[in-house]
Amino acid sequence: MKHMFNHIAIAGLGLIGGSLARDIRRLGLAATITGFGRSPERLKKALEMGIIDAWHTDYSQGIAQADLIIVGTPVSLITQQILEMLPHVKQGAVITDVGSVKTAIIEQVEPMMPQGVFFIGGHPIAGTENSGFESSVDGLFEHRACVLTPTEKTDPHALKKLENFWKAVGANIVCMDIKTHDMIFAGISHLPHIVAFSLVNALTDMENFEKQILQYSAGGFRDFTRIAASDPVMWRDIALMNKDHILNAIGFFEKSLGSLKQSIADGNTSEIEQFFKKSHDTRRAI
Amino acid sequence: MKHMFNHIAIAGLGLIGGSLARDIRRLGLAATITGFGRSPERLKKALEMGIIDAWHTDYSQGIAQADLIIVGTPVSLITQQILEMLPHVKQGAVITDVGSVKTAIIEQVEPMMPQGVFFIGGHPIAGTENSGFESSVDGLFEHRACVLTPTEKTDPHALKKLENFWKAVGANIVCMDIKTHDMIFAGISHLPHIVAFSLVNALTDMENFEKQILQYSAGGFRDFTRIAASDPVMWRDIALMNKDHILNAIGFFEKSLGSLKQSIADGNTSEIEQFFKKSHDTRRAI
Repeated sequence: MKHMFNHIAIAGLGLIGGSLARDIRRLGLAATITGFGRSPERLKKALEMGIIDAWHTDYSQGIAQADLIIVGTPVSLITQQILEMLPHVKQGAVITDVGSVKTAIIEQVEPMMPQGVFFIGGHPIAGTENSGFESSVDGLFEHRACVLTPTEKTDPHALKKLENFWKAVGANIVCMDIKTHDMIFAGISHLPHIVAFSLVNALTDMENFEKQILQYSAGGFRDFTRIAASDPVMWRDIALMNKDHILNAIGFFEKSLGSLKQSIADGNTSEIEQFFKKSHDTRRAI
Repeated sequence: MKHMFNHIAIAGLGLIGGSLARDIRRLGLAATITGFGRSPERLKKALEMGIIDAWHTDYSQGIAQADLIIVGTPVSLITQQILEMLPHVKQGAVITDVGSVKTAIIEQVEPMMPQGVFFIGGHPIAGTENSGFESSVDGLFEHRACVLTPTEKTDPHALKKLENFWKAVGANIVCMDIKTHDMIFAGISHLPHIVAFSLVNALTDMENFEKQILQYSAGGFRDFTRIAASDPVMWRDIALMNKDHILNAIGFFEKSLGSLKQSIADGNTSEIEQFFKKSHDTRRAI
């Protein structure tokens, strides 16, 4: 059987890394899959399940054979993991990541790439409020977008290989530059999470708030608490790593909320209706 | 067959009124169901479907026989509808509503009740982002909370009747005073909607925002746009009718978001993590 890659290495078998290992095995995209991580227990489990063929907790072994290396660790560790593995990586290897912030990673990683080793940033839009290997599933990326962020230094052949890989697991490829990525995701992903966390905290700060009142909430608030159930450490790191774009997005949001607040305080019926109608129409336009 | 009520009238056959008519018929809670509304077309359709037995567009006929009258019109019309029907309502009748704001309605309606006619405010927590008769379904209230807001003037016998009615359609009764109701729902329902509308508008205000980027959004933002798809006119009226509690809730939210924004601007890792962890823990506690 002809595989797309002879050997794929995955560093970090969480939701994304674990789901990718399942798909690579299921679809026969590599002859060999090697897992890297800090937890031997999780790696052993993946080995027993047959979705990886070998595992290591450091890069002195096993990474040297990899043709494609996917870094699926928590976003704050990606840069460090790549720098650690570089001395062991072979010529021609393609390295990618799956972090939801791109500029902070790529600006540090790209200048360190040895000649003939190729790094391309990636961000599959397939996260859920769950995380970890135990949440990994087959087919997580089917019909989901996967953003790739090539730069002017990116090797076109390496990019093609990576695109074919993501297409093989069912993703729709979207290419954009790193700053556009971080600006867009500050708005459509980071800001909604920050707002959801803030809303849940605001309610718990309100006088007379008791947790049992949450049982009365249909729709609206439950969606927010679900979003706010996302991993606090992951979101802390995203907030720090995409700080400027996030602060900018919060600024836009504060302005938007502030104008509505003023219209409500003024009892301005038509302004309030126009405001609500505008977002209603945006939804319909999607 | 012994019915719970001889005659039930429903003013406004929208999502809630229409679903109640379906349940009353299906469960045999009344011998006769009369519908009132502005749209003969909708009322005719309900008649053809057999979920009402008669309909009228004004209260000069049909309301006089009703033992239980449920006002399911848009929230801004409830007070006016009740005042219009009062001259025709019989002694012993129980009137209730389903509006998501209570103080503004009850303070106007309660003092106008004739001797021997009983008003009790109600709020079934069963809304969705859809509205209208075409969205009405069987069993909408099963296992959902229904808040009733008796006052010190409320007749205990009338309250008991109304409680039994809501229990019969499967709801869990929660009684609270009107100000507590409006304070709690400003927080867990009105604020999340206002925040969702504001977030969607903030994004459309951002530079370089193009609607097609919304395709990249997994989870988070899609939930917001779904909430922001709710009826703009209904939310305008809620914002106006529960103004003080909503402005107070927005204030708590702005303070919460502002403190997170400051922590991010300061790059304060532990403050950010604590903030996210707090809402994460609230969710787990529910």
